[in-house]
Amino acid sequence: MRKLTLVTAQTIISAAFEKAESLQLKPLTVAVLDAGGHTIALARQDGASIMRPQIATGKAVGALAVGVGSRWLNANAETRPHFVQALNGVSGGAIVPVPGGVLAKTEDGEILGAVGITGDTSDNDEAAAVAGIEAVGLVADCG
Amino acid sequence: MRKLTLVTAQTIISAAFEKAESLQLKPLTVAVLDAGGHTIALARQDGASIMRPQIATGKAVGALAVGVGSRWLNANAETRPHFVQALNGVSGGAIVPVPGGVLAKTEDGEILGAVGITGDTSDNDEAAAVAGIEAVGLVADCG
Amino acid sequence: MRKLTLVTAQTIISAAFEKAESLQLKPLTVAVLDAGGHTIALARQDGASIMRPQIATGKAVGALAVGVGSRWLNANAETRPHFVQALNGVSGGAIVPVPGGVLAKTEDGEILGAVGITGDTSDNDEAAAVAGIEAVGLVADCG
Amino acid sequence: MRKLTLVTAQTIISAAFEKAESLQLKPLTVAVLDAGGHTIALARQDGASIMRPQIATGKAVGALAVGVGSRWLNANAETRPHFVQALNGVSGGAIVPVPGGVLAKTEDGEILGAVGITGDTSDNDEAAAVAGIEAVGLVADCG
Repeated sequence: MRKLTLVTAQTIISAAFEKAESLQLKPLTVAVLDAGGHTIALARQDGASIMRPQIATGKAVGALAVGVGSRWLNANAETRPHFVQALNGVSGGAIVPVPGGVLAKTEDGEILGAVGITGDTSDNDEAAAVAGIEAVGLVADCG
Repeated sequence: MRKLTLVTAQTIISAAFEKAESLQLKPLTVAVLDAGGHTIALARQDGASIMRPQIATGKAVGALAVGVGSRWLNANAETRPHFVQALNGVSGGAIVPVPGGVLAKTEDGEILGAVGITGDTSDNDEAAAVAGIEAVGLVADCG
Repeated sequence: MRKLTLVTAQTIISAAFEKAESLQLKPLTVAVLDAGGHTIALARQDGASIMRPQIATGKAVGALAVGVGSRWLNANAETRPHFVQALNGVSGGAIVPVPGGVLAKTEDGEILGAVGITGDTSDNDEAAAVAGIEAVGLVADCG
Repeated sequence: MRKLTLVTAQTIISAAFEKAESLQLKPLTVAVLDAGGHTIALARQDGASIMRPQIATGKAVGALAVGVGSRWLNANAETRPHFVQALNGVSGGAIVPVPGGVLAKTEDGEILGAVGITGDTSDNDEAAAVAGIEAVGLVADCG
C-alpha cells in the first residue's frame, strides 16, 4: 500500500488553494487525512471562520467511514436521514455528511486517504478537493 | 438460559461470510453480541471501510435495545422519527436503525444475542445475518 | 505497506488463545486493530466480563496513539500521570494505559497494527499478545 | 490586533521542522493555533503516530487556556494536580499539560496564538516550537 506523505498532502492543499483562487472562492479550510482517518495536514485560509477545521475534517472522516465520497452521505441524508443521524451517533459526532469530502484513491481503487474542504458552496468545496487530489496523480471519489 | 459461546459466534460469522460469498456481496463486517449487548466476536473483511465495526455493532445494539430486529427500527424511523432519534439519544448514539441487526433466538423465543452486519445493501446484510444465525440452529428475528 | 488481513488477524487471535491455554490463563478478550486504530477482529472467550472488548481495544489504541507498546504508557502513568490523563482526554477516553497493548511491526519497523489483550494479569495478557504477533511472523513491540 | 496569517503559520511549521532536522529529532507534529484556540495549520511528519495531531493541539490549547506556555501546566501538574485535572475537565479533555505548547506573542506581550509540538522529548518539542515562533519575529513564551 502506498501512503500519503506529508509532502503529498501539502501539495494537495496548495493545488486546492490554486483552484479556489482561479474560481474566486471564499476562504477555504482544507484537511488531508490518511486512510485511517488521521490528519496529515490542515490549512485554514485567512478569513475562514473558527469551526472550519472541524467541518473540513468531518467531511473527510465521513467519506472514509463508509468508503465513498461524502456526496453519497448527503444523498442518504435525504433518503435515509435516520441512517446518517445514526452514523453521526456511532462516530461520536465526527462526520459532516455534505459534499466536499473526497476520497483519494490509487488507479486500482485503493483508498489512500481523504480530503475535506469547506468555506464556499459544497459543490465548489468539492471541486477544489478534486483539483488537489488530481494534482498528485490520484483518483478522486466524490461519492 | 443458554448462552452464545465464542465458538458459536465464530460459526455464525463464518456462515455469514459463506452466504455473502455465494451472493457475491461487498466486503462485510459482522458483529455478534450477547443478550446484554456486549461483543463476543467481530470480523471485518479486507476492503471494508473504517467505521464498519461501529455500524455493525450499532445494528445489533439497536435490535437488542427494543427486543426486535432492526428492520422494525427502520420502519419506525419513517413513521415515528422522533422515537428513533430519542432512542439514539438515550443510548448515547449507540444504535443504527436500519435492517441488518438480527436477533438470535431459541425456538421458544428466548433472545440469546444479536448479529449486526454492514457492507452491502441493508437487505443483503440482513440475509447474511439470517444465514449465520440459522447455521447454528437458532431462530432469526429480523423485525 | 503491508496490511493486516482478516485471515492474519484471526490467526493472531488463535495463537494468542493457544498461548493462554498453555499458560492456563483466565478467559481472555483479544482485539486486533489495523494501523489506523480500526478493529479488524475481536474475540471474547466464554466467561470474560462484559467490558473486556473496550479494555482490549483501549490497550491497542493506546499503543497506536503514541507509536509504542502500552507498557510505555503504564510507566508514564507513574512518572507523568498528568500526561497519561491528558492523553485519555484528547482521545475521548479511548486509551487503556497498561501492558497488553502490543504493536505488530514488520522487520523494518513499520507499524501494521496492534493487538490488545485483557483478562489475566497485564504481564500475561502481554505474553499472549506477543505469541499471537510472532505466530504470523511479525515483530512485537511491547513498549 | 495583529493576527497570525496562514502564511505565517506555515512559516512557523517549516522553521520548526528545520530546527528538528538540525537536532535530528523524531518525526514531529506541529499545530499552530490562533488567539482563539482555533487551528490555522497543522502538519504531521511521515512516521509520526496517529494521535499526534490531538496531542500537539492539546499542548497549544493548554497554553492559550491559561495564558502561559504549557511548561507552566506541567509544573502545576506536580504541585497542584487537582487544578490541572479540573482544567482537563472544564476544557472537555482538550488540554495536554506538558512542555511543547508555546505562546506566540508580540514584543508588547499580546498573544497572537500558540504552537504545539509533539513527537520527541517534551524539551525538544519545545525547542522546535521556539525556533518556529522566533523565525517569524515573534516572542516565544514557554511557561
